[in-house]
Amino acid sequence: MEMQVVNAMNYEQFVDVFGNVIEKCPLIAAAVWTKRPFPSVSALEKRFGDFIDSLPRSGKEGILRCHPDLAGRDLLRGTLSAESQAEQNRAGLTTLTASQRFQLTELNAAYKNKFHFPFVICARMNDRESIMNQLSSRIHNSPEQELQISIKEVLKICHLRLLDIISPVAHTTKL
Amino acid sequence: MEMQVVNAMNYEQFVDVFGNVIEKCPLIAAAVWTKRPFPSVSALEKRFGDFIDSLPRSGKEGILRCHPDLAGRDLLRGTLSAESQAEQNRAGLTTLTASQRFQLTELNAAYKNKFHFPFVICARMNDRESIMNQLSSRIHNSPEQELQISIKEVLKICHLRLLDIISPVAHTTKL
Repeated sequence: MEMQVVNAMNYEQFVDVFGNVIEKCPLIAAAVWTKRPFPSVSALEKRFGDFIDSLPRSGKEGILRCHPDLAGRDLLRGTLSAESQAEQNRAGLTTLTASQRFQLTELNAAYKNKFHFPFVICARMNDRESIMNQLSSRIHNSPEQELQISIKEVLKICHLRLLDIISPVAHTTKL
Repeated sequence: MEMQVVNAMNYEQFVDVFGNVIEKCPLIAAAVWTKRPFPSVSALEKRFGDFIDSLPRSGKEGILRCHPDLAGRDLLRGTLSAESQAEQNRAGLTTLTASQRFQLTELNAAYKNKFHFPFVICARMNDRESIMNQLSSRIHNSPEQELQISIKEVLKICHLRLLDIISPVAHTTKL
């Protein structure tokens, strides 16, 4: 998809296509549409980041809370978004042994108990081992640090999802 | 449901229950959870309003863009949220004659063309006739007026959806 096509979309088309680049937050894509046209995919990506920056702390926490647990109930129930399903697949989280799943579930529960949002990581930039290591390490952060790190992970996920939609050769266009 | 039950919910339970009181914006419920406990349903409602107030203009527009058209494509496709389906039903929007549907579709298209968001009205506080009258009249407003009026309608919808969830006799509780 070229940027000309993106810039010609009405808001309904835009939300249909970009509504889940921030997981389960179509509100954000719908808000970003206001800022069209987008000269490049990186300009579009920056609008997503700017909007998230503009939110109060509770809003940033809200974004994190819209993310599924890794290898959690949505995976078991088959209710993951298509994007999350593919990402958790690729990171090897859909084929855990019983003991790996138990360990991840326990750590995740402790993480959520401390931070009141789920552990969010760009699964496609990690594998099973590095995800476990990150989770074991990040759980010791302060809530403030962890909020910042998690939102950066959200933006990495957004980056890759945008690239999935917009072909890499067509990332800029004349307006 | 009593407020004690609401205040004892973890964020996952809270988003499961209140995630759609603002249509297709679970992010907002997930953000509001940060502000628990809620001494009353009206205190809870106020947190939703406060969060929406805190958003930049694009965010308010984003909320409106997450709403379906009245008697529009989601109704025809059967992809309305359960709440919207019930509300459009009650307002008589699911049993329009062909000519009524045509008129509504035309007006809605003109409305969206002017404001870049769909016509939002609390259907349960209106009937078919008053909805048509409101649409015919509000289309003449300025974008600024219409944004304000529409967000007020979102809050009316939120109010009724909250009352549907929390029993009227249990609207307050000691904390």
